[in-house]
Amino acid sequence: MSSQRKPRGPYRKSAERREQILQAAYEAVDEHGERASLQDIAARVGVTQPALTYYFPTRDELLLAVLERRDVVGKALASAAGEGGSLVRAMAAGASLTTDHPGVAKLYVTLSAAATDPESPAHAYFAERYRRLAAEAEEGAAVQQRVGGIRADAPADHLSRVLIAVMDGLQLQWMHDPTVDIAAIAETFALLLVPPVGTEPEAKPAE
Amino acid sequence: MSSQRKPRGPYRKSAERREQILQAAYEAVDEHGERASLQDIAARVGVTQPALTYYFPTRDELLLAVLERRDVVGKALASAAGEGGSLVRAMAAGASLTTDHPGVAKLYVTLSAAATDPESPAHAYFAERYRRLAAEAEEGAAVQQRVGGIRADAPADHLSRVLIAVMDGLQLQWMHDPTVDIAAIAETFALLLVPPVGTEPEAKPAE
Repeated sequence: MSSQRKPRGPYRKSAERREQILQAAYEAVDEHGERASLQDIAARVGVTQPALTYYFPTRDELLLAVLERRDVVGKALASAAGEGGSLVRAMAAGASLTTDHPGVAKLYVTLSAAATDPESPAHAYFAERYRRLAAEAEEGAAVQQRVGGIRADAPADHLSRVLIAVMDGLQLQWMHDPTVDIAAIAETFALLLVPPVGTEPEAKPAE
Repeated sequence: MSSQRKPRGPYRKSAERREQILQAAYEAVDEHGERASLQDIAARVGVTQPALTYYFPTRDELLLAVLERRDVVGKALASAAGEGGSLVRAMAAGASLTTDHPGVAKLYVTLSAAATDPESPAHAYFAERYRRLAAEAEEGAAVQQRVGGIRADAPADHLSRVLIAVMDGLQLQWMHDPTVDIAAIAETFALLLVPPVGTEPEAKPAE
């Protein structure tokens, strides 16, 4: 069951079709925001709407899958840009996730807000998402603190929550006013995290 | 027309009634979030629903007035706590605005997200609100930079946008998980703004 072999045959085909639908949904949402219709998405893939619901039983599930994909893309972007530990470039890359795909960003902002209602179908999804993001960011922050990439005089779990808040909050400001240069502002925030002079970690003993 | 005399007679009575309705709406929203009904609000004041619409023609206008009131309260709280320039206490006071009045916070989060849609009736209101908040925070940041209250090595307009983002973003995280101590995290953020040693502004010449 835990085989790492590449799936083949009907299963692989099914995974490919699911991926096509998800990609089409991403594009449709990017163009039309949360108003993107299942009909439009099905048409982009060339399948019927019932075929679409075979992969994503409800519209909510498909939209949440789009946001999950956005998180994956964002993580990849930030980690590629932050190669070598540049938080400044990682923050700017995170901002581009908003400005390059405003329709998906709008879906994220709207669903995340609506999901604060415990009765929302997306409530559990977002609660878990924030927990996971915060844990990942905390781990990243702790590593950067050890190597002197960011200041070590603040708790890593607080810094991770602040970082997520800055990205969410700047995204919201940009949607209200697209002239706000959120990439530049995110870079300024990253500079606040640079270790103050004299607080660098001690050099590692030579091996 | 620009007389500063205290309003009296029918006008004063009308202003008082408007204030009562606004206060009742604030409490109703605090208890029921955006689901607060006009019927409930009218009942709290002891007026009919038509009397209520004399002061606030639409439900949207009343809800936005509640959010405007929230901003006024938040500003007063932050400025009282920040007396003497303590950004740390001001940030914690801002966080209490969320945790003490979750229903109103939820209305803010939901309407602010929905208003990113240019077709939303609240779109112009929020765009203007963010512009005003950012301008006010920038002015406050510039003053603090001159007196050495916060670091001067980052642009004041960027810091103001980051500060608003942190408050918005932490609020959202708290609504998804009320165990997150956003007051403590906001204080950690404020500490990031403390001027690094050796960057204090030059002492003012003696008079």
